[in-house]
Amino acid sequence: MATLWGGRFKKPIDPDFETFSRSIQYDYRLAEYDIYHSLIHTRALKNGGILDGQECERILAALGEVLREVEQGTYTPDAAAEDIHSEIHGRLEKKIGALAAKLHTLRSRNDQIAFDEKYYCLQVTVNITRRLEDVLDALMQLSRKYPEQPFVGYTHTQRAQVVLFSDYLGAFFLMFKRDLERIKEFGDRTIPYIGAGALAGSSLNRKDYARAIQDLFGDTETAVRPVENSLDNVADRDFLAELLSILSIVQMHLSRLAEDFILYSTQEFALLDLPEEFCTGSSLMPHKKNPDFLELVRGYTGKIYGNLMALLTTMKGLPLTYNRDMQLDKEPVFEAVAIVEKELQILAKLLPGVAVEEAAVARALQDEFLYATEIAEFLVFQRVAFKEAHDIVGRLVRYAKENKVSLKTMSDGQLAEFHPALRQQEMARIIDPQYAISSKKTISHKLPEYHA
Amino acid sequence: MATLWGGRFKKPIDPDFETFSRSIQYDYRLAEYDIYHSLIHTRALKNGGILDGQECERILAALGEVLREVEQGTYTPDAAAEDIHSEIHGRLEKKIGALAAKLHTLRSRNDQIAFDEKYYCLQVTVNITRRLEDVLDALMQLSRKYPEQPFVGYTHTQRAQVVLFSDYLGAFFLMFKRDLERIKEFGDRTIPYIGAGALAGSSLNRKDYARAIQDLFGDTETAVRPVENSLDNVADRDFLAELLSILSIVQMHLSRLAEDFILYSTQEFALLDLPEEFCTGSSLMPHKKNPDFLELVRGYTGKIYGNLMALLTTMKGLPLTYNRDMQLDKEPVFEAVAIVEKELQILAKLLPGVAVEEAAVARALQDEFLYATEIAEFLVFQRVAFKEAHDIVGRLVRYAKENKVSLKTMSDGQLAEFHPALRQQEMARIIDPQYAISSKKTISHKLPEYHA
Amino acid sequence: MATLWGGRFKKPIDPDFETFSRSIQYDYRLAEYDIYHSLIHTRALKNGGILDGQECERILAALGEVLREVEQGTYTPDAAAEDIHSEIHGRLEKKIGALAAKLHTLRSRNDQIAFDEKYYCLQVTVNITRRLEDVLDALMQLSRKYPEQPFVGYTHTQRAQVVLFSDYLGAFFLMFKRDLERIKEFGDRTIPYIGAGALAGSSLNRKDYARAIQDLFGDTETAVRPVENSLDNVADRDFLAELLSILSIVQMHLSRLAEDFILYSTQEFALLDLPEEFCTGSSLMPHKKNPDFLELVRGYTGKIYGNLMALLTTMKGLPLTYNRDMQLDKEPVFEAVAIVEKELQILAKLLPGVAVEEAAVARALQDEFLYATEIAEFLVFQRVAFKEAHDIVGRLVRYAKENKVSLKTMSDGQLAEFHPALRQQEMARIIDPQYAISSKKTISHKLPEYHA
Amino acid sequence: MATLWGGRFKKPIDPDFETFSRSIQYDYRLAEYDIYHSLIHTRALKNGGILDGQECERILAALGEVLREVEQGTYTPDAAAEDIHSEIHGRLEKKIGALAAKLHTLRSRNDQIAFDEKYYCLQVTVNITRRLEDVLDALMQLSRKYPEQPFVGYTHTQRAQVVLFSDYLGAFFLMFKRDLERIKEFGDRTIPYIGAGALAGSSLNRKDYARAIQDLFGDTETAVRPVENSLDNVADRDFLAELLSILSIVQMHLSRLAEDFILYSTQEFALLDLPEEFCTGSSLMPHKKNPDFLELVRGYTGKIYGNLMALLTTMKGLPLTYNRDMQLDKEPVFEAVAIVEKELQILAKLLPGVAVEEAAVARALQDEFLYATEIAEFLVFQRVAFKEAHDIVGRLVRYAKENKVSLKTMSDGQLAEFHPALRQQEMARIIDPQYAISSKKTISHKLPEYHA
Repeated sequence: MATLWGGRFKKPIDPDFETFSRSIQYDYRLAEYDIYHSLIHTRALKNGGILDGQECERILAALGEVLREVEQGTYTPDAAAEDIHSEIHGRLEKKIGALAAKLHTLRSRNDQIAFDEKYYCLQVTVNITRRLEDVLDALMQLSRKYPEQPFVGYTHTQRAQVVLFSDYLGAFFLMFKRDLERIKEFGDRTIPYIGAGALAGSSLNRKDYARAIQDLFGDTETAVRPVENSLDNVADRDFLAELLSILSIVQMHLSRLAEDFILYSTQEFALLDLPEEFCTGSSLMPHKKNPDFLELVRGYTGKIYGNLMALLTTMKGLPLTYNRDMQLDKEPVFEAVAIVEKELQILAKLLPGVAVEEAAVARALQDEFLYATEIAEFLVFQRVAFKEAHDIVGRLVRYAKENKVSLKTMSDGQLAEFHPALRQQEMARIIDPQYAISSKKTISHKLPEYHA
Repeated sequence: MATLWGGRFKKPIDPDFETFSRSIQYDYRLAEYDIYHSLIHTRALKNGGILDGQECERILAALGEVLREVEQGTYTPDAAAEDIHSEIHGRLEKKIGALAAKLHTLRSRNDQIAFDEKYYCLQVTVNITRRLEDVLDALMQLSRKYPEQPFVGYTHTQRAQVVLFSDYLGAFFLMFKRDLERIKEFGDRTIPYIGAGALAGSSLNRKDYARAIQDLFGDTETAVRPVENSLDNVADRDFLAELLSILSIVQMHLSRLAEDFILYSTQEFALLDLPEEFCTGSSLMPHKKNPDFLELVRGYTGKIYGNLMALLTTMKGLPLTYNRDMQLDKEPVFEAVAIVEKELQILAKLLPGVAVEEAAVARALQDEFLYATEIAEFLVFQRVAFKEAHDIVGRLVRYAKENKVSLKTMSDGQLAEFHPALRQQEMARIIDPQYAISSKKTISHKLPEYHA
Repeated sequence: MATLWGGRFKKPIDPDFETFSRSIQYDYRLAEYDIYHSLIHTRALKNGGILDGQECERILAALGEVLREVEQGTYTPDAAAEDIHSEIHGRLEKKIGALAAKLHTLRSRNDQIAFDEKYYCLQVTVNITRRLEDVLDALMQLSRKYPEQPFVGYTHTQRAQVVLFSDYLGAFFLMFKRDLERIKEFGDRTIPYIGAGALAGSSLNRKDYARAIQDLFGDTETAVRPVENSLDNVADRDFLAELLSILSIVQMHLSRLAEDFILYSTQEFALLDLPEEFCTGSSLMPHKKNPDFLELVRGYTGKIYGNLMALLTTMKGLPLTYNRDMQLDKEPVFEAVAIVEKELQILAKLLPGVAVEEAAVARALQDEFLYATEIAEFLVFQRVAFKEAHDIVGRLVRYAKENKVSLKTMSDGQLAEFHPALRQQEMARIIDPQYAISSKKTISHKLPEYHA
Repeated sequence: MATLWGGRFKKPIDPDFETFSRSIQYDYRLAEYDIYHSLIHTRALKNGGILDGQECERILAALGEVLREVEQGTYTPDAAAEDIHSEIHGRLEKKIGALAAKLHTLRSRNDQIAFDEKYYCLQVTVNITRRLEDVLDALMQLSRKYPEQPFVGYTHTQRAQVVLFSDYLGAFFLMFKRDLERIKEFGDRTIPYIGAGALAGSSLNRKDYARAIQDLFGDTETAVRPVENSLDNVADRDFLAELLSILSIVQMHLSRLAEDFILYSTQEFALLDLPEEFCTGSSLMPHKKNPDFLELVRGYTGKIYGNLMALLTTMKGLPLTYNRDMQLDKEPVFEAVAIVEKELQILAKLLPGVAVEEAAVARALQDEFLYATEIAEFLVFQRVAFKEAHDIVGRLVRYAKENKVSLKTMSDGQLAEFHPALRQQEMARIIDPQYAISSKKTISHKLPEYHA
């Protein structure tokens, strides 16, 4: 395979090393953005007087053809190409012969790859945003299906207090909404620069690039800019680390939702019923309905975190500017993006199919200990210091547990031994999901506003 | 040590477990923010009718005393306290007796810790911002000391092209400037909420909190808000993961600066001279001047990345809402913040003392291969296709290396064998640092604007 | 604070950098091993003719005094010392004046720290081994308390099949037993070498060291050896990475045990009752009994993994031989060792207090779906192909679920519709925990042999 | 695509989830080992009376055919298969129809995958061992090419002392030799068990499996065993974490060799010349010879560490026994193994082509500061305390540097101002690479014994 370099070398590249160093198998997915770079650069070369008008048109036309093939999915890269830049170059050569070589003038793959990766990130921002919005919509949809549904709230995986199911979903809603903000700000910060050369810039003028960008995008808003600092542009990959960090936090949120739903759909918790289409059975145990999708989501947390660590570690201590190590920045990002997109997409389909096991939830809500805090807060409004109220209810709870009695059935006399304000009638009023929920005045019980 | 819970328990806590579970040794640094929580909560309790005016005043006064001790550094926490909440509670009890217990009404440590950590993050944002600005200023200062200094630009740690020293510094400037943006956006997103209770909110009214916040902060702008979704508030720690991600990227940038400066101050590169005050000697080898500060900076990359991984891993798959695992969110953040702050502070002092080894740089810039690209670009403007120009210069380079001749001393005749446009006069013009730098028209050769 | 270097330097060290670079706050715990190094080195210096007999004796006597203080815990290091080597040196100086300086002849801190860390690792091996053995003993003890107890076995956190509780515990037993093998092999591979100098060895003879080692340890077996390759000795830290890897796997096992026990002690699973001494209550919810120890264990997984990542990252791409980055190898290891030791120690106390909730387990074992595999296997022995048997039982299970009938109460006629071999009598025999367990012939139902 | 489960389900699996959950694209590489499992299990079924002799023979013959296809690389799996188990099952069905179903009797994919992965690890052990041995051989070969070559030894990337080039290589030799020990012990500990069922064992007898293993392997030694504890067998993946830990340490060693060789082949260090076949050029800068292979090796450290972190994180806190998360254990391991194998293979080819730049090394060794330690040690043997000697040489070094004089040219009188024992004749003797090397008596100057 011809390379874009070589004049200095006498010996051929070692074939094992050639295979080892190849990136076409993953950087092919940058084809579209690499062509954008060329579409701008060709125009800049004409503006700078390196290409004449006809040459420029012929290259643009050939690039346009390749772009269409890529967009239509009919383009198959040569598996023996070194990288996407060499690949596109080779394809152009087939179309326009020696003229293709003129395109690779006054630019460098270091410049191209930084441009391509940032353009890719802009597209990822759009896609992840849409997927997150779909999940937010699905959470709202599920929430509206159960507008007044009380639910068991947990701390330490122990039953704690009664909450609204929609508030429970609202917690995840807010997590993913913050993720949305993070990805948006990331997109706003990501600027595909062009013109850095290998590291030092090139002899073309900034305004040649500026006009070329204007020519290509016209009135369409674009983030593309002529380069400011060429060393930074070819050296740094902090934008990829930022993207992977954002995806890691999304994934952390996904793993927690997965864990909860796995737990809540066990025979033991039985609070939620998962849609069958996202579960699997067992090849040995015919009765099983396993929450495999959610388990895979939880499991993928390893990969997403690992890929963040991979990129950060690869970039650790790299001298300026470009180093070949940085070729390895792509796979961790591409993989993580593909996984998180898919997870969000499938989750948005799964969520509306989730059903609250209302009878089982109702049974769980009969657990009187869930109302211990409400009883204590009731005492507080009877002017009992909370610490004392906490102790009183603590003893009451232990008494009830040891004697296997229901708090609701205890007589006024029995209750009075703990505190005179505790009366059977009050207990009946307090030990009730509706009471528990309506007594909470600090929270808004609403999903936050959100406009997709 | 008395705990804030216990009524239900018959057996005492195992002493080894008690020690194991203690967090006072690190969460003490949240003391200030925990008192802010109490200052608001006390007022909210009064607004809600739980405390009367006098009780409120006495608690506020006692809190004020504790706050001053903390601010003045005269406060010593009890090493046997369970956590900062119990610690402050115990201190209040010493001051105002049983009234202290009233403060712990209708709130939970789950709510306090989320508030405290977010308030801490706001303070961190301010501090890291200032430290980053100091480094940006120091980079500008060093840059201005060498306004026209040419420098060796590297790719693959191999000499590549001549660049301006100020552009080289500008690359780091831009990296840290993006870090500044990230931390700023993080600060904007971080809202210390109050009123979540253990997970379900409490019987106080939102407006009781709103008024309390207004009372405390008056006209001072504050990010503090009454809670919206109490489950999210006590459950999530994505803000800490975001902070550690940002610090990891800062650290990645620091590690690269460190690596470069270590390299450039070796006897072999000899491009930079490091200020002695930030180096150390050897206990065995008396001639050594080791770049220890920069090595430690590079080495700390492990710790910062590791702490990000620690937090993300701890949060993986945790069921909603609060779990005790989350106690371990603090040390990784506190450590990373302290290290990065210190690194930035010392770096800002070191940078102005860095000296360019001008003579050695000048010698390095005599390496004619550094101008290979310029020769090739010159040929391009003679209408040679770049690929051909690249090959020509590649052969020229190999010829010069094998025959140990200087390109500048080659005769017109010798040069013409490579290309007729290559003449001795042209070579003398091109093989010159000033030419190399001034020929780059795509870049702006300026530090970006920046207003601290 | 005086340093062990400095002759070459004109400016004093920057005080912030001095604080930043200090390691005494954590490397103090190597004091004992650093003294061993000195005890050998002093003798080697005498063997090599650098010290005379009297000097040697005086130094050894002073070292002995310091060692006793360290062992008795009465030694307090100077917080302003640079590191443990300078610290011990300073202490010796106070005792024997200028003679102390003679000890720091022909050796380097690079050599000392490698020796100290490896000696520390040998001690860690002994301690972790003992802790793991205590956990193995505790698992055996708990296992013997419930010799025939059937238990619910899970896959995908869904009820799967009946297992023996002792086999369930045996799974953890085997995990920790493998951990024991790993730590043992690690210990066998760890050799504290002495004599590397800064990186190149020294003018002392190998046999001077060999005799010194022999003098110190006499007939006591020791792993200490004169150095073979001095560059490797001061450069590499793979032994610390190996130790952290082993601890990470121990921690992974601990996190799984913690997760299971947290789950099994929820109100919903209710299979196990945890000893109260290792749980805590809530400051707001008086009824809570939270499995905090186990949550902390699960949570610490982040820290242990993070510390492994920290060390590996710090060592990534470090040029040979010693670099100051390597100072940061200690904290991650010391922390991880301390945490894992404590976890194992407390777990060994907690385990014997765990109680099987026998009534609740018995109720769970009435879930007939747990026997689906046994029914299918029964059909296989009636010469039904397993895939067909699997389908039959799958339909049977769905029928029972939809019609809310017990498989045991289905008549022969009803059962025959699924398969003629399925008869009420057979179902009663099969749907029984004892049958389920005794029908498993591939496994040994025994804890593996183990001799502490 | 037909699955091995499903009787219980009414709705079809969601097609996106089906794609998401598929593992055939990576677990196909376990085909060979999965067939071994079947070859044993088929015999065990016959031994247990489930299959008759003829059925057994027909299945074995069909399995044999599939195995040959796999071994010859002519087997193409169905991209729509769920996993390798379903894939092989489907293939068998095409060959022997309904009889294939009988093979999937009394076993589970949980059992198969644990067996397959462990068998794979045994093969990996063999392969990595061979690759490590090749690198050790290559290091020896390079070492023998330069038996007496002095070399610059570095600490803190600063010139420190003269060392032997073969000792320098010996440091890497020892690192990889320890890696070899680790992988060997890992292999010894890895036992592919068979017979675990889904988690609880099965109705077959242990001796049916024992005989089946004996039948398959005959006199060939094998690690395969009937299962002991079935829960541990299907639940744990510590062996994969151990393998990734070992590979991470190998990779750490590789990254350090890469860093050194990258540095040593810069124009500035110029100590080593890398074989051209493992370098690349630049598409813009025609003079470049970039150490791309070594940069990629250094860069891959991110991926290997990241994959270790991925697996550990995925396994964190997983409840017993099998969970679908564990499907994701394979890619991190397969990738890491493939990368490390390839790196070692290419490195073994590159090493013999490395050339010491003898002239440049000789020039570097004229740096008199490299002998500072030797001068100090000389003084020690003149009975100067080392600390004093260190100070003397420190001042001498500073004097020489500031006055730009050579230590060798200083007169006896000038030298005497530092110490009377320092005389010009002594300086000439000491400032010599051969002296420096021969004066080191603590080290053995030999590559350790090693028998491939």
